Amino acid sequence: MSFAATILTLYPEMFPGALGVSLAGRALERGDWSLDCVQVRDFATDKHRTVDDTPAGGGAGMVLKVDVLSAAIDHARERQPNCPVLAMTPRGKPITQARIRELAAGPGVTILCGRFEGFDERIFEGREVEEVAVGDIVLSGGEPAALMILDACIRLLPGVMGASDSGTEESFEEGLLEYPQFTRPVEWEGRRIPEVLRSGDHAKIAAWRKTRAHEDTRLRRPDLWERHGGVRDLSASGAQQDHKE
Amino acid sequence: MSFAATILTLYPEMFPGALGVSLAGRALERGDWSLDCVQVRDFATDKHRTVDDTPAGGGAGMVLKVDVLSAAIDHARERQPNCPVLAMTPRGKPITQARIRELAAGPGVTILCGRFEGFDERIFEGREVEEVAVGDIVLSGGEPAALMILDACIRLLPGVMGASDSGTEESFEEGLLEYPQFTRPVEWEGRRIPEVLRSGDHAKIAAWRKTRAHEDTRLRRPDLWERHGGVRDLSASGAQQDHKE
Repeated sequence: MSFAATILTLYPEMFPGALGVSLAGRALERGDWSLDCVQVRDFATDKHRTVDDTPAGGGAGMVLKVDVLSAAIDHARERQPNCPVLAMTPRGKPITQARIRELAAGPGVTILCGRFEGFDERIFEGREVEEVAVGDIVLSGGEPAALMILDACIRLLPGVMGASDSGTEESFEEGLLEYPQFTRPVEWEGRRIPEVLRSGDHAKIAAWRKTRAHEDTRLRRPDLWERHGGVRDLSASGAQQDHKE
Repeated sequence: MSFAATILTLYPEMFPGALGVSLAGRALERGDWSLDCVQVRDFATDKHRTVDDTPAGGGAGMVLKVDVLSAAIDHARERQPNCPVLAMTPRGKPITQARIRELAAGPGVTILCGRFEGFDERIFEGREVEEVAVGDIVLSGGEPAALMILDACIRLLPGVMGASDSGTEESFEEGLLEYPQFTRPVEWEGRRIPEVLRSGDHAKIAAWRKTRAHEDTRLRRPDLWERHGGVRDLSASGAQQDHKE
């Protein structure tokens, strides 16, 4: 069955964008996923097709109207009743690879993209919408973040990556960064591929990679490492790891 | 002066993509920023124009060759010697709004996009490249993440947003989420805009917004809140806040 992506946006012409070529583009052509862009402006109720208004209490920018947003969401939910609805907002929960895996395993996803100063907050009280952030940065709108979420889902759909590229040995699986990669030439500007990777000793290679994944996660992403350590403490019998607060 | 965006990619046709319309698109037409897409494959040295090879030590996927990557980076650096070079990789440092502000204030940015299993690690030892992650998810390639970085930079360029939209009162500025927004109608499905926002009392409105920004950050993003609290402890005189470990 095809993964149904529905995008609620004021700029449908931004899609499929980067997802129209390469891996995602070929998957779209094959029908591994489908794309339905809904123009939020179509749900405006006045003759000027107004979608936004000034912020209550004052301030810069414009806020997307809750009556328009709810009508657009209700429309999408009628068409895709089983797809979770995500709203892209810096106030949302940071997306994780685990959530991407859940989404990719489901029937599809509906993504609401904001513009301007964002959404009237009541939409999150009155409708079941998951507020999601992608990186701690502020965009001109949710569309580039929606493209990222879709790309991350699409590559995990059955048949999209080659059979060998299962996507299970990579960053954020098991809460770790992936180990570093190398390929030919063996020597480049005086820098050689680590000897162990050329040894043919699969056990030693696996051990080296595990050590590097652990080391790199600890040094580069102490936040991930801390969570990883916590999980191991709960699930494993021994306490192999020092815990610093 | 125009902000110079250079993208090193195997898929130049993915650009400008979503950045060709709306705010970023108009800014591109005006010349507020420029886009130069460099095809990494042009720097392959064999007649098959090979850019990748199998991972040393075995494993799924293909790794981008360091000799090809370095030639592409050297080319870009010659053309834009003052622009920092970023590589999009889940092993990188999570991008922050503070870094986006620095980039936007500079002459431009060069972004290297990976595909497949990523880069030969030696490129980061042999060239000055900033490894950057956008969200803890894995993409089919760095291109959608590059679009996000560019979008975040472009909206901050002088003249791109309206004068009133300074972009200073928004999420991640001062390390907090933004307060929630509301707009008309005053009542929607029985839910009313908070009365304080309709009071016209600017001091009360500012206080309410500050409280909500603090509360929402604490509840939704304890990680940000923790960092924010630490900074306040260092900079402020009083200790207004309980610190839990």
